[in-house]
Amino acid sequence: MPFPSAALAPGETVAASFAEQFAAVRRCTEELCAPLATEDYVIQSMPEASPAKWHLAHTSWFFETFVLHPHVPGYRSFHPEFNYLFNSYYQALGPRWARDQRGVLSRPTVEDTYRYRKYIDDQIRELLDAGNVAMLDRVADTIVLGLHHEQQHQELILTDLKHAFAQNPLRPAYHSAKRSIGAPPPSRWVRFAEALVEIGHAGAPEQRTGTFPQSSGPLFRGAHFAYDNERPRHKTLRPAFRLANRLVTNAEYLAFMTDGGYAKPQLWLSDGWAARQAGDWQAPLYWEKRDETWSTFTLTGQRPIGPDEPVCHVSYYEADAFARWARARLPTEAEWESAAETVAIGGHFLEAGRGQPGAMPAADDHGPLFQLFGDVWQWTASPHVSYPGYRQPAGALGEYNGKFMCNQMVLRGASCATPRSHARRTYRNFFPPEARWQFSGIRLASDA
Amino acid sequence: MPFPSAALAPGETVAASFAEQFAAVRRCTEELCAPLATEDYVIQSMPEASPAKWHLAHTSWFFETFVLHPHVPGYRSFHPEFNYLFNSYYQALGPRWARDQRGVLSRPTVEDTYRYRKYIDDQIRELLDAGNVAMLDRVADTIVLGLHHEQQHQELILTDLKHAFAQNPLRPAYHSAKRSIGAPPPSRWVRFAEALVEIGHAGAPEQRTGTFPQSSGPLFRGAHFAYDNERPRHKTLRPAFRLANRLVTNAEYLAFMTDGGYAKPQLWLSDGWAARQAGDWQAPLYWEKRDETWSTFTLTGQRPIGPDEPVCHVSYYEADAFARWARARLPTEAEWESAAETVAIGGHFLEAGRGQPGAMPAADDHGPLFQLFGDVWQWTASPHVSYPGYRQPAGALGEYNGKFMCNQMVLRGASCATPRSHARRTYRNFFPPEARWQFSGIRLASDA
Amino acid sequence: MPFPSAALAPGETVAASFAEQFAAVRRCTEELCAPLATEDYVIQSMPEASPAKWHLAHTSWFFETFVLHPHVPGYRSFHPEFNYLFNSYYQALGPRWARDQRGVLSRPTVEDTYRYRKYIDDQIRELLDAGNVAMLDRVADTIVLGLHHEQQHQELILTDLKHAFAQNPLRPAYHSAKRSIGAPPPSRWVRFAEALVEIGHAGAPEQRTGTFPQSSGPLFRGAHFAYDNERPRHKTLRPAFRLANRLVTNAEYLAFMTDGGYAKPQLWLSDGWAARQAGDWQAPLYWEKRDETWSTFTLTGQRPIGPDEPVCHVSYYEADAFARWARARLPTEAEWESAAETVAIGGHFLEAGRGQPGAMPAADDHGPLFQLFGDVWQWTASPHVSYPGYRQPAGALGEYNGKFMCNQMVLRGASCATPRSHARRTYRNFFPPEARWQFSGIRLASDA
Amino acid sequence: MPFPSAALAPGETVAASFAEQFAAVRRCTEELCAPLATEDYVIQSMPEASPAKWHLAHTSWFFETFVLHPHVPGYRSFHPEFNYLFNSYYQALGPRWARDQRGVLSRPTVEDTYRYRKYIDDQIRELLDAGNVAMLDRVADTIVLGLHHEQQHQELILTDLKHAFAQNPLRPAYHSAKRSIGAPPPSRWVRFAEALVEIGHAGAPEQRTGTFPQSSGPLFRGAHFAYDNERPRHKTLRPAFRLANRLVTNAEYLAFMTDGGYAKPQLWLSDGWAARQAGDWQAPLYWEKRDETWSTFTLTGQRPIGPDEPVCHVSYYEADAFARWARARLPTEAEWESAAETVAIGGHFLEAGRGQPGAMPAADDHGPLFQLFGDVWQWTASPHVSYPGYRQPAGALGEYNGKFMCNQMVLRGASCATPRSHARRTYRNFFPPEARWQFSGIRLASDA
Repeated sequence: MPFPSAALAPGETVAASFAEQFAAVRRCTEELCAPLATEDYVIQSMPEASPAKWHLAHTSWFFETFVLHPHVPGYRSFHPEFNYLFNSYYQALGPRWARDQRGVLSRPTVEDTYRYRKYIDDQIRELLDAGNVAMLDRVADTIVLGLHHEQQHQELILTDLKHAFAQNPLRPAYHSAKRSIGAPPPSRWVRFAEALVEIGHAGAPEQRTGTFPQSSGPLFRGAHFAYDNERPRHKTLRPAFRLANRLVTNAEYLAFMTDGGYAKPQLWLSDGWAARQAGDWQAPLYWEKRDETWSTFTLTGQRPIGPDEPVCHVSYYEADAFARWARARLPTEAEWESAAETVAIGGHFLEAGRGQPGAMPAADDHGPLFQLFGDVWQWTASPHVSYPGYRQPAGALGEYNGKFMCNQMVLRGASCATPRSHARRTYRNFFPPEARWQFSGIRLASDA
Repeated sequence: MPFPSAALAPGETVAASFAEQFAAVRRCTEELCAPLATEDYVIQSMPEASPAKWHLAHTSWFFETFVLHPHVPGYRSFHPEFNYLFNSYYQALGPRWARDQRGVLSRPTVEDTYRYRKYIDDQIRELLDAGNVAMLDRVADTIVLGLHHEQQHQELILTDLKHAFAQNPLRPAYHSAKRSIGAPPPSRWVRFAEALVEIGHAGAPEQRTGTFPQSSGPLFRGAHFAYDNERPRHKTLRPAFRLANRLVTNAEYLAFMTDGGYAKPQLWLSDGWAARQAGDWQAPLYWEKRDETWSTFTLTGQRPIGPDEPVCHVSYYEADAFARWARARLPTEAEWESAAETVAIGGHFLEAGRGQPGAMPAADDHGPLFQLFGDVWQWTASPHVSYPGYRQPAGALGEYNGKFMCNQMVLRGASCATPRSHARRTYRNFFPPEARWQFSGIRLASDA
Repeated sequence: MPFPSAALAPGETVAASFAEQFAAVRRCTEELCAPLATEDYVIQSMPEASPAKWHLAHTSWFFETFVLHPHVPGYRSFHPEFNYLFNSYYQALGPRWARDQRGVLSRPTVEDTYRYRKYIDDQIRELLDAGNVAMLDRVADTIVLGLHHEQQHQELILTDLKHAFAQNPLRPAYHSAKRSIGAPPPSRWVRFAEALVEIGHAGAPEQRTGTFPQSSGPLFRGAHFAYDNERPRHKTLRPAFRLANRLVTNAEYLAFMTDGGYAKPQLWLSDGWAARQAGDWQAPLYWEKRDETWSTFTLTGQRPIGPDEPVCHVSYYEADAFARWARARLPTEAEWESAAETVAIGGHFLEAGRGQPGAMPAADDHGPLFQLFGDVWQWTASPHVSYPGYRQPAGALGEYNGKFMCNQMVLRGASCATPRSHARRTYRNFFPPEARWQFSGIRLASDA
Repeated sequence: MPFPSAALAPGETVAASFAEQFAAVRRCTEELCAPLATEDYVIQSMPEASPAKWHLAHTSWFFETFVLHPHVPGYRSFHPEFNYLFNSYYQALGPRWARDQRGVLSRPTVEDTYRYRKYIDDQIRELLDAGNVAMLDRVADTIVLGLHHEQQHQELILTDLKHAFAQNPLRPAYHSAKRSIGAPPPSRWVRFAEALVEIGHAGAPEQRTGTFPQSSGPLFRGAHFAYDNERPRHKTLRPAFRLANRLVTNAEYLAFMTDGGYAKPQLWLSDGWAARQAGDWQAPLYWEKRDETWSTFTLTGQRPIGPDEPVCHVSYYEADAFARWARARLPTEAEWESAAETVAIGGHFLEAGRGQPGAMPAADDHGPLFQLFGDVWQWTASPHVSYPGYRQPAGALGEYNGKFMCNQMVLRGASCATPRSHARRTYRNFFPPEARWQFSGIRLASDA
């Protein structure tokens, strides 16, 4: 059973100690890697994806760089070259190993990498166990950020691995879990009236996660944490609109394909059509047609297309073209977030152990809005730009989100590869419009 | 004197006949080309720029394709291959000559091209002169669109030519007009309170330019026309903010450069820094340093940097980095447009005959806001996306703006290469964030 | 009639004065350009081709750089930037304008370029007319080299122009001359026994063209001149072999195509197959299939394939694949040259005015070997390397051929675009194996 | 001790049985991989290099494809996808996995790969043990070819691994063997008179390795085997020339560097200079300058430059430029081979266990010619073309060498990574002129 479960989710009600939460998140990353052969840790199948080994090391480097080095007097690096090797993109931290060359490195070995993780874990635990409240106040925010950061990489480990396995003609399977898919509810519009709404996270920028609590409180709970790009909470005029009650299914997407969706430039954005041409896209990523039947590669291997499952691995361009074909459009961030305000965070997360989106049994749904969280991230019509009043954090961590506010589109919700405790209504995920290897799908909207 | 003047600007008060307006715009294009040698019409200095010859033909093709072919019974094309050669990007109109190969075509010759223009002009005049009111009602909107389209290409003829001449070590000059530059007013902030404002153009989409008037009314006046991407007019919550009273000057931009602006990645967006590295940007486009002195290439040849002139030929990335350095930001579209509501449209347009931005003498300014129009287009912080309720026009003309609503940033105002009658408060110009060959500059904003 | 005729060919028997020969070659270049529109002079259709304007200037730059500057005291350059603009590839002469950007320059204009030519012509004539024998002794070799250099560019003007016109959907014609094609003689092998032969040019390297004669002797005659790469004449063991009596025809090449020649990798060199795939080659360059019929673009426009004409515009890779398909091979240089020793230089040259290869009427042929000269250059199996004992000339002119002795294949003979006086038995033309835009064809050989 | 020793070299005098020879070569490959971590088997550091895992599988695929499949009735493939995955470049065998994507495959795992090897070994042994003489006659040639093929890959395993390790900032060492380097003899010329010589291998093409002997004779000995490109033996006129008695040393190459060898285009071939510019070459591959001292990466890690060692990891372009600087040239194949006729095959091979070239102690040398074999392959001035009378073998194996007879230069000798039994006087190794990752060095020649 490759997917970690209970350990992962402190959730809303579990009040684990801070150290326990730290250990749980770190352990989850390693549990996700448990099914891998040593060789699987090493490969990089495209510049945007990273070897699992790199993810393991980089998430440790994060704690080393932002917590241990600045805050632990006399801290000794695990290895002098690791800052160079495992810095992802922080310009303020000096030069770094080229992103598209991560698959060229056989060393450190997987074993070395796990030793690195253990070294960092020991150091952090020691720091947490010391009971130095002043110190904890200084580092708590960054550790929490580091845990959320690590959760993002948990998702990337799965998406990058899926991409790598999909290239391989041997079609390796990551796991073999069964999946039971229920029929989705009928599609319908949910109408919202024009309103002056508030969106974004209310936490003050200076105080990223709240002061470190004396008790072992639920520090890590989603509600208390947010990235800088989710702030500040602010008013915006949301026009009247309609939001689809559920995700677009494979069956619906196939209708678009059958109707020539990939052959009609008039349905596509100009850059989207160019991407379609350059990549010779004929279907979502991983889809394959043999003998007139479509199948797709999943973490459990090659499988027939499930008509009731949410369509997945589409780019923004495809989502946008599909919406135009359906005489609809994608929702804006404000529309999505304000609609999500009334919905409980639930759904098909990493812990469900499927690694593949799937419609929940109808019985689980008490709508009107289904599948807002879990299954697939939902492309919005909103470019990733700063909210009014946004303040970029000082120092290297200011690069976390702020410098990516151009040429990227926001996705909302969460996916079947997202840890449950990582999901938030205000969460702004973002990827370039041509990205397809994330668990990304489509929810429609339209003018009211 | 290369710049056409009176003929160009029907302006707010001149009520020329429709045919006269058509003739004036068409003539202006040719007058802009008058200083060119035959060889200058042919070359293409980069994929984004086009030969002058191509602009002359493409603007004629526009009328042939969208007016003559569909509306004139039995219309005979000037040449059967011209639809293939001069279609710019309309997928609905079939395949077309590759954009980056426009400089490979020596034929049609310049003379052929002018004959093509004359043929089209004659056909359109005939159609207008026929006095068939029903016909005029059908074609008027498209002709007006074609004239605004041609004005866009007038600006491009100058920017493309400047780019081509700038590559040439012989540094040809397009004209030799004198320029007198006054000192700009001191920089200061103009404060605006939070407000629910309306932006966008009020004209109905179905009725792009109003019904064709029986009289020879001022059809072509800016106030009556708008592109589809400026519609619909809509409410938006504009936060409190401050807008700089004038454009950023070369002297101010030099301070950014001197302070290492091009060497500090922390000031740049991630994609911006990548573009800076890839292009080895050290200064705005066309700037050149010799013996510790900066000069720049202009349409009148190589000239020293004028410290009081607005900085020009910067990309969005540079504008954004400069703003961050200045502890400010770029304005959003809503901020810019709502601020511009109270300002009369005036400034330094194509008709000024300089082809180079330049601060107006202080005496001409009755602020508080200066240089909103003319001189340089102003990069905004807003990606080019659709307004709430936007409807893409039907047919091939729906491709005019709608398919470019991704990976492009909006610029507002107008430049020294924009015909005066082309400027509008609601005008949404857009270019990719790395574009530098337009007359694009910087106006700062900040949170209030 | 675009092709210059009498003026061009001093030939073996014409004893024109040196100044007359200089004038004749220079005039020929300009006569070749007479049919061009101004626009045709400007364009560059691929990096390997150059604008006609550039050829006109570069051949003048050659005399300015290698004759006038070093030998005329106080010589004043026509323009200070022209050394930068018109140096083709001589590293020793400093930096130069990028080869693939030659089509970006509208200036100097065509008129300026002709003025440059006239300036150089005047200077050279003055130098020749001065009757300073010591001076003439110093410059004669280089002037003769410059004339042969200019003749090479005469051929390139035609091949580059053909390439440019072929891109244009309007398919312009360079001229409209008629062509009468006779049937080629039946193909048969001519056998040669093993022999120790001498190949290469006998002239001493130090004395490129002989001392300048006091009388106006036939200095420029082919027999007296050779490029450095043709020297020294040397012995080599030529194995017994067989050489085809004539060139491969279009009909024969079509049989290869019909037999799947372009679809069978086993017929191709590895790099050749890669080039075929990358360029999607299905036929020689310029061939086009419509309605099951092949036609080709020529200097007189689009024309049906002439089955009896020599196949033309094939790369080395295609020539080699064809030979393998025909169970033959290409001849080596030594085989070709030693076979050519007994054949008079005659055939279908530039002066024939066709600009297209074509089998001579059978009556003109008194074999056994036909078409060794004229029609098309013949790819050999020999890479362009130095002969034993080769000495690279000193100075910048040492770069003329010496630095291209890698990754190029030798072609022998001459083409329908080669001036007659430029052809030589020892001539070693060379191009990269993928080049197709020259008039290059196939003569087969095989082991005896 | 990573380098296999005794097991590897059947040598001239060892008369091992065929099966023993097969086992020895196969075992040697695996012994070479013994020092690797699992991760090291997976990576591909550039398109031209392959993962060790791939080499292990491909050399097994060779026997499976060319011996087992065609000759063993009812043979069952180890895995149906392995022909697709491990076919290197044989077009006749169908499509194959892209060469530059070999590092993207984590599966088959290393363990799977060794199981594949064992499967093939068992099958071949069974075939050899069966004592079916008719069968052995049919397969012996191909098995011998497969063993030589595997030896080539033994060398590539080391050169590819060195390249991969050299990229890694951790600079892993493959082994830690000591090396003792003696001073080289003084450089001097050895003169050879003009002669009609014979070069190439005398074996008949139809009979690649001799008939399979009834006894367990020394089938595999170098003298009896040759690749098709070494045949036929043929006469050629070798001019008088001089050959350097030993290899160029690092000290000599440093003198070239110090004299600006990498900054003087006049020393370089045109394509060579372009490669130098594109790759920013300043020294041989793997050289690194820190604090004014040059060091180099070796299989034992980073080490100072040994001035007496042969220069290594230079391209043909660098070898050619060095020779020009030294007022010499590179030898032709005929020169090298005819000079080598009188020299015993000895030197510094794979079995020496250094994996790095090194001058032999002076006492070992009984010249006049030293270091013809072992240490480094020696670039010749000869392009890789067919010998007169060359016949490409039929079938897929005809692709082994024949299709690479273009754009490659011949290297002669053998290197410190070549198994001793693989070296031959007639051996024609070849690589593209820009290749630098092989153990390639320089021996000078000059006209007599």
